Amino acid sequence: MQTIELKNRPKIVGGYSIVGPKEGRGPFGKYFDYVMKSDSFGEKTYELAERKMFEIAATGAIQNAGLMVSDVNLMLAGDLLNQIISSSYAARAFNMPYLGMFGACSTMAESLAVGAVLINGRHLKNVVCASGSHFSTAERQFRFPLELGCQRVPTSQWTVTAAGASVLSLEGSGPEIVSVTFGKVIDLGIKDVNNMGAAMAPAAADTMAVHFEETKHKPEDYDLILTGDLGKLGSEILIDLLEAKGYKMGKNYSDCGHSFFTREQDTMCGGSGCGANAAVLNSYVLKKMRKGEVKRVLFVPTGALMSTTATQQGESIPGVSHAIVLESGGK
Amino acid sequence: MQTIELKNRPKIVGGYSIVGPKEGRGPFGKYFDYVMKSDSFGEKTYELAERKMFEIAATGAIQNAGLMVSDVNLMLAGDLLNQIISSSYAARAFNMPYLGMFGACSTMAESLAVGAVLINGRHLKNVVCASGSHFSTAERQFRFPLELGCQRVPTSQWTVTAAGASVLSLEGSGPEIVSVTFGKVIDLGIKDVNNMGAAMAPAAADTMAVHFEETKHKPEDYDLILTGDLGKLGSEILIDLLEAKGYKMGKNYSDCGHSFFTREQDTMCGGSGCGANAAVLNSYVLKKMRKGEVKRVLFVPTGALMSTTATQQGESIPGVSHAIVLESGGK
Repeated sequence: MQTIELKNRPKIVGGYSIVGPKEGRGPFGKYFDYVMKSDSFGEKTYELAERKMFEIAATGAIQNAGLMVSDVNLMLAGDLLNQIISSSYAARAFNMPYLGMFGACSTMAESLAVGAVLINGRHLKNVVCASGSHFSTAERQFRFPLELGCQRVPTSQWTVTAAGASVLSLEGSGPEIVSVTFGKVIDLGIKDVNNMGAAMAPAAADTMAVHFEETKHKPEDYDLILTGDLGKLGSEILIDLLEAKGYKMGKNYSDCGHSFFTREQDTMCGGSGCGANAAVLNSYVLKKMRKGEVKRVLFVPTGALMSTTATQQGESIPGVSHAIVLESGGK
Repeated sequence: MQTIELKNRPKIVGGYSIVGPKEGRGPFGKYFDYVMKSDSFGEKTYELAERKMFEIAATGAIQNAGLMVSDVNLMLAGDLLNQIISSSYAARAFNMPYLGMFGACSTMAESLAVGAVLINGRHLKNVVCASGSHFSTAERQFRFPLELGCQRVPTSQWTVTAAGASVLSLEGSGPEIVSVTFGKVIDLGIKDVNNMGAAMAPAAADTMAVHFEETKHKPEDYDLILTGDLGKLGSEILIDLLEAKGYKMGKNYSDCGHSFFTREQDTMCGGSGCGANAAVLNSYVLKKMRKGEVKRVLFVPTGALMSTTATQQGESIPGVSHAIVLESGGK
């Protein structure tokens, strides 16, 4: 079994999302808690801006939960930067224990899953889970210096500048985490770092098929199925892969990356990055669930686990994906 | 509370350690399961050698637990390389879910702690936790290309080439994980990347003092207190810091890094790296505990959470440390 049922149903009692200006102009714009006026966010480096976004997201989620920082027992966070410095350096500012997580763009799911298990077992009272990404730090670390002005290929995605945080607890109100499905590392040999959707889709398909099989649920049992950042091409591949496994995805399926920007924002296959799904979960999804407009959600962030060293040594790109089931509880 | 008591007492039912040739000639040499003949381990790159060490450590621990790979429900692993590629790429070879962990050299403690909580809650039956490091991959990533032949300063430590893995379960025999104490990120402003011991010692002191306070235990209650890789200087700082907090460390205290090499092996302040504590735990400690020569162990790996980008931007080095209490159970 890869699926863990959480009998005590930990709740997301507070969430917060912060995004960059381009992201704020996208379709989810009105749902985000905070839209930055500039990508540098008043800081000297983009890395400092990314860290500040983490601090604001975690603080905001704790405040939205009606809690104080001193009420929270643990931070679980991760990001895309080498040695996940945005998370770890942000954690310095909070006087609470910290677990660093790395699942690339699936990190929000990993943090939520581990946090939910800790809350479910009544080991801790409140935990905060956070993840995020920044266009300018990720692009220069993984691809090229922005100053080079490299052309983008049609399969490429735009790393979003966004962070999201959730506070989990058994006390309080909010959407409940019903189960988590831990995913395997799947690598079908894609080597093109400008085609992350194709590299990650097989991992999402594997985790989702296992989830449907183990829980006896079908895609139509969910009001919303939301993958992380497969983008346009990756989502289409996922739909095909799942159809081959006997699962037909319907209109309730969407991908955070694919729907993060409008067509006019010219991001080729859409958005990507830890922040895409972390911000959409903690804005659009939470708000829709709290209003009762969406009741059952399957949240399936995906991560591409390569590094520049691995790519330079000729390696293919392994993907991983974890699934979280959310249900809107009582008020 | 930062300490979680694990009532069902997950056991380390299998462990495995693999080290490089220099490490094999050190004081723990006879305890390791496998000593490589060369650092390159027959691979084309040191990164591939490091990955192979992870695969062998995880496979060895599963075999030593008397299990098959198909019996294990989850791998929790992490390492020092950017995007923890050694762990993630090794995980491809195992047909099981995977959670990537990052706590720098404290990663083995983080993996064990999260794994133990999952086992304690009977969410999963068997999990494998792994961590490791390689001198040649870490040095060139974090410091200088080895070919430069840079001189080492007196406070420096030698990243060990070693990996260790543990299988946790409620069934079977082995040392029991009684409690885990999650640590905070502590940064007292050390900026010297050649003095990791000083950067990490305050985090270890903080976690240990919290552990002693919350569990009402004293240092003398343990047969062995083992920090991760503080090295000679870092251990001395830890002893001073704990004394100032009212805890006197005795002869039962040792540091994996400090004791990893002999004086003649000329590593300045000793060993460092995720692999140091992962390998010592899964060789010396497990074997001594199984023989009943050591009964209560406080295992406290420490991690320095910086990256080269953070250092180049003038940042100081945050430390983190988690504590695990092991008790030898019945046979």
